[in-house]
Amino acid sequence: MKFATLLRKAPEWMIHDGPHRDIVLTSRIRLARNLDGSTFPGYARKDDRVALMTALQPKIESLPEMKDSFSEDLGNLDAIRKQALVEKHLISREHAAKAGGSAAVINREQSLSIMINEEDHLRMQSIRSGLDLRAAFAALDRVDTELDGLVNYAFDQRYGYLTACPTNLGTGMRASAMLHLPGLVLSDQVNQVITAVNKIGLAVRGLYGEGTEALANLFQISNQHTLGEREGDIIARLEKVIEQVIGHEQNARKKLLEDAPHKVLDHVGRAYATLCFAHILESKEALTHLSMLRMGCDLGMFPGMEAKLIDTLLVEIQPAHLQIGAQRKLNAEERDILRAEVLRRRLAGFPEPKTDVAAGPPPEDPPLI
Amino acid sequence: MKFATLLRKAPEWMIHDGPHRDIVLTSRIRLARNLDGSTFPGYARKDDRVALMTALQPKIESLPEMKDSFSEDLGNLDAIRKQALVEKHLISREHAAKAGGSAAVINREQSLSIMINEEDHLRMQSIRSGLDLRAAFAALDRVDTELDGLVNYAFDQRYGYLTACPTNLGTGMRASAMLHLPGLVLSDQVNQVITAVNKIGLAVRGLYGEGTEALANLFQISNQHTLGEREGDIIARLEKVIEQVIGHEQNARKKLLEDAPHKVLDHVGRAYATLCFAHILESKEALTHLSMLRMGCDLGMFPGMEAKLIDTLLVEIQPAHLQIGAQRKLNAEERDILRAEVLRRRLAGFPEPKTDVAAGPPPEDPPLI
Repeated sequence: MKFATLLRKAPEWMIHDGPHRDIVLTSRIRLARNLDGSTFPGYARKDDRVALMTALQPKIESLPEMKDSFSEDLGNLDAIRKQALVEKHLISREHAAKAGGSAAVINREQSLSIMINEEDHLRMQSIRSGLDLRAAFAALDRVDTELDGLVNYAFDQRYGYLTACPTNLGTGMRASAMLHLPGLVLSDQVNQVITAVNKIGLAVRGLYGEGTEALANLFQISNQHTLGEREGDIIARLEKVIEQVIGHEQNARKKLLEDAPHKVLDHVGRAYATLCFAHILESKEALTHLSMLRMGCDLGMFPGMEAKLIDTLLVEIQPAHLQIGAQRKLNAEERDILRAEVLRRRLAGFPEPKTDVAAGPPPEDPPLI
Repeated sequence: MKFATLLRKAPEWMIHDGPHRDIVLTSRIRLARNLDGSTFPGYARKDDRVALMTALQPKIESLPEMKDSFSEDLGNLDAIRKQALVEKHLISREHAAKAGGSAAVINREQSLSIMINEEDHLRMQSIRSGLDLRAAFAALDRVDTELDGLVNYAFDQRYGYLTACPTNLGTGMRASAMLHLPGLVLSDQVNQVITAVNKIGLAVRGLYGEGTEALANLFQISNQHTLGEREGDIIARLEKVIEQVIGHEQNARKKLLEDAPHKVLDHVGRAYATLCFAHILESKEALTHLSMLRMGCDLGMFPGMEAKLIDTLLVEIQPAHLQIGAQRKLNAEERDILRAEVLRRRLAGFPEPKTDVAAGPPPEDPPLI
């Protein structure tokens, strides 16, 4: 698959409606693996990395799951194209900083992506719409098992899979879900929830992972520990917590509609209006408005507007996507103008927000995790 | 004329299109007069003030210009009604603070209003649409001459009309125009213009006169001095300066459209959108957006939308007008919700802003005053 095709094609997770899609955008599983007897990428010489990549890449491409995949040495992609892969959540920001000697193999559905020579020799990711960590794990587990038959993983009886960073030792697994929590943010409850989630050993991060800001009211919840617990147990525990957070978000939205309907209508109305009529839009502001539009959409204020349109826009309005669309480098000012233009065009024709979204009485709030 | 009629009726200056109405909302003349041998209102005893008012009010009502006028002792108007008269620019904020013993007489067209026992025994105002100081003065001069035949003005050969505050001595006249200067504000030139205007002895004030903020990009320019110059000369000088400011504003708008069309479209588009879709709107924010809408209207971005609608809204969304409309006292939160509702209703049905407002090359900027 060519890069242009990859970029044009919507990933499976955007098109399909997974469980709890109104609140959980995606579920992701990442496995870290290394080859026995080879130096970790951060310490290996360039020709060793190239040799390892050259040996690994065809093996990955040969897997049935990776048929017709996009497979490329990062040395062949310019900065904007690599950034576009980050914006689509297909490679990590760290991987995008790599050049020759590192590669990415991504399947047609963009549900599986395998990075070669990131921090580890192999970083494999499976992504699904909604809250569907088990399905995401099952898909990646098959790939992992198949690869295990083709290469020799660095594995220790006591420490499990060996990884460049000790925080990944053991299962080498990071399971995460991206949650949209505008209700908790608007009702000033989100920090309470984050604190509670952190206390039980889970991490909460921003839109693009570790060290990034929570934009568009999107929060990534993931396991911190990879050692001493089985994959299935980690996932089950994470899933349970996420379901509780979903419950809190649902209640927060219902309560907001009940107690402060004007506030909800105001936030959603202004967001819709700005997206439809602004001519200069910075990324951060656009994301904030898209979050409110997404909430309005979930609340039934925009009949005919689907969540997947908004989820697509969250990616489409990012800098690299805009520049590839324009087929040239754009400075920040030009991007802000183009971003507003794209949003006006994509949101044209939808009817104005409905203002009669009545809420039933809010349910009892369950205990805080 | 009853208070309800006065409030419902649009003032003449809102309906008519005076010269330069795109930039000059109104021209106003105010004359301060006192009766010979009577103590100034600030020093008079209440029964003296009542006696003077009781003697003056019927004389004013009897003038041909004041036929069928609204004429009321302020003691008979509650705070909200008095505030509504301030919002319509019919009485001063200071006069609204007065109670029994002070009165207001306002003609049917609301082009003439006469305050009894404000700071002076008589404060008479004439108001016109656009830049039309001469017509405003001519109308008030007739009233002044007629009254001069009915009462004995305090007048000194050397100091002219005697007034409670020495800054009004002489002509007792304040001539002013309310200018809408969004172009100069957006292009960061307005402070330069204000400084230049101040330097030549004119005052620049906010929407509701002395000590008020410049809201909605509205600036009132008036004479500072009342002594030693004839009325006609003061007006001619003021008019000349205002015409220069108009020129600067026109150039600023043209240059903005030429150099930063996206910025103009962005400001106007966001303003329109927020006014049409917000559900909570504070007064200050609403005024800011109405200013941008007015500019868009002047630039031809809203065919079918007339400046007078927006000028009417500038008054209609003020706190007292909202509360009289709702027929009850409203707290700030309730007013913000009602304000948004009024604006959504009044702006519904207008087509979306046109975005093809092309500008010709900007003209040479004349020297700064």
